[in-house]
Amino acid sequence: TADDMLYHICITAISVSLTSSRSIARTCLMKASPVNFLDHTQHKGLAVAVFGVLLCKLWGLLVSPNPLPFTKDSTNKQNWVILGVFYYPALYYPLLACGTLHNNVGYVLGSLLSWTHFSVLVWQKIDCPKTPLIHKYYSLFSSLPQIACLAFLSFQYPLFLFKGFKGAERTNTTEDLSSSYYKDYVKKILLEKKPSKVSATSTDKPKLPQRVTDAVKSYIYTPEEAFRFPLKLAISCVVSFITLYQMGLVLISAVVPTMQKARFGVDEDIANVLAGFQIILSPDRKEVVRIVVYYMWCVEVCYISAMTLSALVNLVLLMRSMVLHRSNLKGLYRGDVYNVYNCQRSIRASRPALVCWMGYTSFTAAHICIGMMIQTLVFFLCLLVAVFLIIIPILHRQNLILFQILLSMWPFWLMILLAVVLQHITARFCFIKKTAGTHDLNNRGNLFLLTYLLFPVNVLIGVLLAVWRMVITSLFNIVHMGRMDISLLNRNVEAFDPAYRCYAHYLKIEVSQSHPVMKAFCGMLLQSLDQENKAAQRSRDAEEGIQLVQQEKKLHKVSSAKRARMHWQLLYTLVNNPSLVGTRKHFQLQTVDNFLNGSLNRGSKQGSKKEAIPQEAEAAASN
Amino acid sequence: TADDMLYHICITAISVSLTSSRSIARTCLMKASPVNFLDHTQHKGLAVAVFGVLLCKLWGLLVSPNPLPFTKDSTNKQNWVILGVFYYPALYYPLLACGTLHNNVGYVLGSLLSWTHFSVLVWQKIDCPKTPLIHKYYSLFSSLPQIACLAFLSFQYPLFLFKGFKGAERTNTTEDLSSSYYKDYVKKILLEKKPSKVSATSTDKPKLPQRVTDAVKSYIYTPEEAFRFPLKLAISCVVSFITLYQMGLVLISAVVPTMQKARFGVDEDIANVLAGFQIILSPDRKEVVRIVVYYMWCVEVCYISAMTLSALVNLVLLMRSMVLHRSNLKGLYRGDVYNVYNCQRSIRASRPALVCWMGYTSFTAAHICIGMMIQTLVFFLCLLVAVFLIIIPILHRQNLILFQILLSMWPFWLMILLAVVLQHITARFCFIKKTAGTHDLNNRGNLFLLTYLLFPVNVLIGVLLAVWRMVITSLFNIVHMGRMDISLLNRNVEAFDPAYRCYAHYLKIEVSQSHPVMKAFCGMLLQSLDQENKAAQRSRDAEEGIQLVQQEKKLHKVSSAKRARMHWQLLYTLVNNPSLVGTRKHFQLQTVDNFLNGSLNRGSKQGSKKEAIPQEAEAAASN
Repeated sequence: TADDMLYHICITAISVSLTSSRSIARTCLMKASPVNFLDHTQHKGLAVAVFGVLLCKLWGLLVSPNPLPFTKDSTNKQNWVILGVFYYPALYYPLLACGTLHNNVGYVLGSLLSWTHFSVLVWQKIDCPKTPLIHKYYSLFSSLPQIACLAFLSFQYPLFLFKGFKGAERTNTTEDLSSSYYKDYVKKILLEKKPSKVSATSTDKPKLPQRVTDAVKSYIYTPEEAFRFPLKLAISCVVSFITLYQMGLVLISAVVPTMQKARFGVDEDIANVLAGFQIILSPDRKEVVRIVVYYMWCVEVCYISAMTLSALVNLVLLMRSMVLHRSNLKGLYRGDVYNVYNCQRSIRASRPALVCWMGYTSFTAAHICIGMMIQTLVFFLCLLVAVFLIIIPILHRQNLILFQILLSMWPFWLMILLAVVLQHITARFCFIKKTAGTHDLNNRGNLFLLTYLLFPVNVLIGVLLAVWRMVITSLFNIVHMGRMDISLLNRNVEAFDPAYRCYAHYLKIEVSQSHPVMKAFCGMLLQSLDQENKAAQRSRDAEEGIQLVQQEKKLHKVSSAKRARMHWQLLYTLVNNPSLVGTRKHFQLQTVDNFLNGSLNRGSKQGSKKEAIPQEAEAAASN
Repeated sequence: TADDMLYHICITAISVSLTSSRSIARTCLMKASPVNFLDHTQHKGLAVAVFGVLLCKLWGLLVSPNPLPFTKDSTNKQNWVILGVFYYPALYYPLLACGTLHNNVGYVLGSLLSWTHFSVLVWQKIDCPKTPLIHKYYSLFSSLPQIACLAFLSFQYPLFLFKGFKGAERTNTTEDLSSSYYKDYVKKILLEKKPSKVSATSTDKPKLPQRVTDAVKSYIYTPEEAFRFPLKLAISCVVSFITLYQMGLVLISAVVPTMQKARFGVDEDIANVLAGFQIILSPDRKEVVRIVVYYMWCVEVCYISAMTLSALVNLVLLMRSMVLHRSNLKGLYRGDVYNVYNCQRSIRASRPALVCWMGYTSFTAAHICIGMMIQTLVFFLCLLVAVFLIIIPILHRQNLILFQILLSMWPFWLMILLAVVLQHITARFCFIKKTAGTHDLNNRGNLFLLTYLLFPVNVLIGVLLAVWRMVITSLFNIVHMGRMDISLLNRNVEAFDPAYRCYAHYLKIEVSQSHPVMKAFCGMLLQSLDQENKAAQRSRDAEEGIQLVQQEKKLHKVSSAKRARMHWQLLYTLVNNPSLVGTRKHFQLQTVDNFLNGSLNRGSKQGSKKEAIPQEAEAAASN
C-alpha cells in the first residue's frame, strides 16, 4: 500500500519548497501574485475544485479517529484535529496557487502536483478499499468527491498548459475587465424593455395554474446568458453539494448497517425479553420473531426514507437558493436595496461585512450539515408515527387506536365543521352586500349575534388553528434550516437570525466589489486608455514629420470626443445604477482616476452637447 | 347550598321569557335592536364583561367532568360539552342585550339579571369553596374573573339606570357619530406636525441607550388621548388576560399539589428503589431521603418559575400587541397599507375577512392557551437543565460534568476564539481602507489567502452559529406563539401563518368599518343636516311674516356656504386619507347620500373658490 505518512511528508516538503521557490520567483519576476485566487480574473474551476478537496479532507479529519497521518495516537484527537485544520489548507495551497501564476511554469507544477495527489489517492483506495471506520466502504465512498475534484484538477492543468503553448492563454491580468461578460451584461440591461405596467395591473390576481407554475419555476434554476455567479457563490454551491453528499453518507452508513445487524441477529430469545415487559405479540415464538423483524425493517425503511427526503429537500432548496441569489444580486446591482433587505442599507465594505464574507462559504456548509441532521431526525419521527399509527394498522386492520379515537370524537368534528361552514356561508350570502362594485357589511345585528353565539365554538377552532400554526411554522423552519439566504424570523427582527445577517453582509461585499456595470465601465476606460496611448505614440511619431500635423489635430479631436463620450457613458450608467455611486471614488488604477477626472473637467465645458450624447452613449454601449 | 340545577332552570326560563317579551316590545316600539352589541354605539364595558363571563364558563365546561348542571352523567361528556358550548352563550345573552335597549326597562332587567347571577355565584362559592376538581381551591380561584365580571355588570346596570332617570343618558342611536372622539381624532391628525425629515436623516443610527429606551418603550402601552381601541379589540385584550389567568391556574393547580404530595411522601424505601437502578446517592438512608426531597423541591421550583416566566412573557407581549395594534390601525387609517402588510392589499370587506373577524377574539384566547402550555414546557426543560447541570453542581462543587467537558475542550474554544478575533482585527485594520469617507478593500491577495486558510476553522464556527440560529429561532417562535399580530414565518411566506393571516383579515374589516375620519365626517354631515332642517323650519315660520324675507335670504346663503365647506372638507379628507376612497360610496343613511350628492353637484359650480377654501376647511376642522 501507499504509505500515507511517507506520502504526506513528501508532499509537504514539495509544497514548502515550491512556495518558497515561487516566492523567490515572484520577487524576481514581479509579475503575478499567487494569492489572488478568489478574484474574478482567475480560473473558477480550480478554486472550486480545491475548496471541494479541502472540505472532504476536513470531513475525514472530524470523522476518523486518526486525524493526521503522522500519528497513530488517538488519545489526543482534539489537538491533532486543531493541527489538521490548519495543516490541510497549507497542504493543498500550491494546487490553487499554481493556477494564479498565469504562466507555463505554474501549469507544469500544477499538473505534476495534481497528478501526484490524484494517483496516490486512487492507489490507496484501490489497494485497500475497506476500512474499519464507521462502515467498511464508508471511507471509499467518502473520498469519491475528493477523487472527482482531483481528477478535474489533473485534467484542467494540462489543458491550461496546452492552451499556454498554443498562445491562446492571455497572460494579461486585466483579462477579467476586458472579457465580454460585463459588456454583455450592460448591453442586456440597456436593451431590456421595461415590463409593461399595464399587464401587471390588469391581471392583479393571476389564476391558480399560473401561480402554481410560477411557484414551481422559482424552484428550478435555469442559467441565464448574461449573468454569471460571483466566484465565492459558485464555491459555496459546490461546497454545499459536497456537504450534502457527505452528510447523507454519514447518516446512512452510521445507522443503517447497525440496524441491519440487529435485524439479522433477532432470534427466538426476543420472545422472552418481550414477555419480560408484558408484551406478548403472539403465542408462537417464530411468529414473534417474524413480527419483530418486520417492525425493525419498517423502522429501517422509515430512516432511509427520512434521510432521502431530507437530502432531496436540501437539493431543491439549494436550487431555490441559487435562483434567489441571482435575483438578489440583480436587484442590488439595480440599486433595489429596499426589496432585498426590507430596509435601507448602505452597500459598502465594513468590518462585520468583511468577516461575514470570509466565513460565508464555510457557514453554508455547516448550516446544511446541521439542517440535514435535524431534518432527518424530525422526518424520521414523523414517518415512524405515520407508519406505526396509520399505515400498518390500516394494512393489518388491527390496533386502529388513532382512528378509533378520531371516530369516537365525531360529534366534535361535526360541530367544528358545521360551525366553520356556517360562518363561511353566512359571511358570503348574508353579511356581505355587493353594490356598485364595492363590498359592504349587511345585517350588522345578526353578524354580531352570530359572533357572540359562536364565540365558544371558535375558541375550540382556535385551538386547532394554533396547533396547525405550530406544526406549519416548525416544519417550515426545520426544512429551511440549511438555507442562509432567508431569515427564519419575523420580518421586523430578521437581522437577529445570525445566518441571514451573515448572508446580508456577504451580499454587500459581493455587490460593492463585483458590480458588472462598474467592471464593464472600467474595462472600457482601460481600453480607451490603451487606444489613447497608442494615439499619443503615433502623434509623437508624427511630430517628426511636418506633413502629418493636420492628421494629428484630427486625432486629438477624436480623442477628446471619445472622452466626452466616456463622460456621458459614466453619467448614464450612474443614473441607471444608483448603487454604483458609492463605489465610484476608488478605482482600479490611479492613472484611470486621473484620466477620469480630466475627462470630467473637460466634459463639463461641453455642456451644449448634452442633448445629443445620451443616445450616442446608448448606441456605443449596444455595439 | 344553592342548587345549581334549579338555578339554571330558573335563569333559563327567565332568559327565554325575557327574550320573547323583549322581541314583542321591540316590534311594538321599533326602536332599538337588542343585537347591536358589538357596535361602537354601545357601552363597551358590558360587552367586555359578558364575554369574560362566557369565557370563564367555557373554561369550566372543558375542565369539569360534569359540563352541564342538568346531568350527573359523566360518561357522555363530549356531547354535553357540545351542548354547553351553545347553551351558555344563550344563557348570558340577556345580560348583553339589556344594555343595547338604551332605555330604563332594559337597565332594570339588566340589573335584576346581573344581581341574580352574581348573588347565586357568590353564594355557591361561599357555601362550598372546596371542590374535588383538580385542586380543592381550583374552582374558587377559577371563578374569580367570572365574579369580577358579574360584579362589574351588577354595578354598571344600576349606574345606567340612575343616569337614565337623571336624563343624562342620551337615547340617540347616532350617539356614536356625534361623540367628540372622532372630531378629536381628526383635529389631532390635522394639527399634527410632520416629523422633521432633517432629524430623521441626520441621525441615521441612534445611539445605543436611545435604542434600548425605544425598544423598552415599544413594550409599554401608554394610552393616547385621541385614540380608542375598537370594541372587538378591547374584548380580545380582556379575553386574553382572563385566558392567561385561567391557564396559569390550571398549570399550577394540576401539577404542583401532586408534586408536593409526592415530595412529602418520600420515605426511606426510596433508597432501595434507587439501589435497584444502581443509583446509590449516599450510604446513609436518611441522607438519601434528604437528597431526593431536595431534588424534588428543585424540580418544583423550576416548574413554578417556568409557569411564572411564561405568564410574565405573555403579559408583556400582550402589552406589546396592544402597542402594535394601535400603530397598525393608525397606519391603515392613514392608508399606509404597505408598511403594515408588506404588500399592497385592498382594504374592504370580503368573505374570508369577515370569517376571520368573527373568530378573532376566540382565536386570540386559544393561541394564548396553547402558547402558554408550550412555553411552560420548554422553559421548564431549560430550567431543569440549567439547575441540574449548572447551578446545583456549582453550589455543591460536585458532578461538574458540563464544566469538565467544556474545560477539556479548551484548545478548541481557544482556536475558535482566536480565529474569530483574527478575522475581525485583520478585517478592521488590514483589509479595509478608508479614503475620503468611503470604504474600500485593501490587500485583496492577503484577504483571499486568509479566507482560504481559515475555511476549515470557519466550518467549525459555522456549526456553532447554526446551533445558535436554531436556539434563537425556536425560542423566538415559542415565546411569540401566543401572539397573532406577528407572523412566525419568513417575510415572503408570512401569509401561510394561519394566525397572522387571520389578524391581517381582521384588521381589514376593522379599518373599513370604523375609520375615525369617516365617522367624524358622517357626524358632521348629520349635524349640518339637523341645522339645515332647523333653518328650513325657521324660514318656513318666517315666510308667514313678510318682514323676515331679508333674514331668510341670509340664512340660505349661510347654508350654501356651509355646503361648499362640507364639500371641501370631504375632498381634503379624501386626499389625506386615500384608504377612505373605497368606503365612500356606501353610507349610513340614504338621505345623507342624497344630501352629499346635491352638495357635490352644487360644489362643482363654485370652482372659483378653490384656492380659498382648503384653509377654511382646516380652520373649521380645528375649531
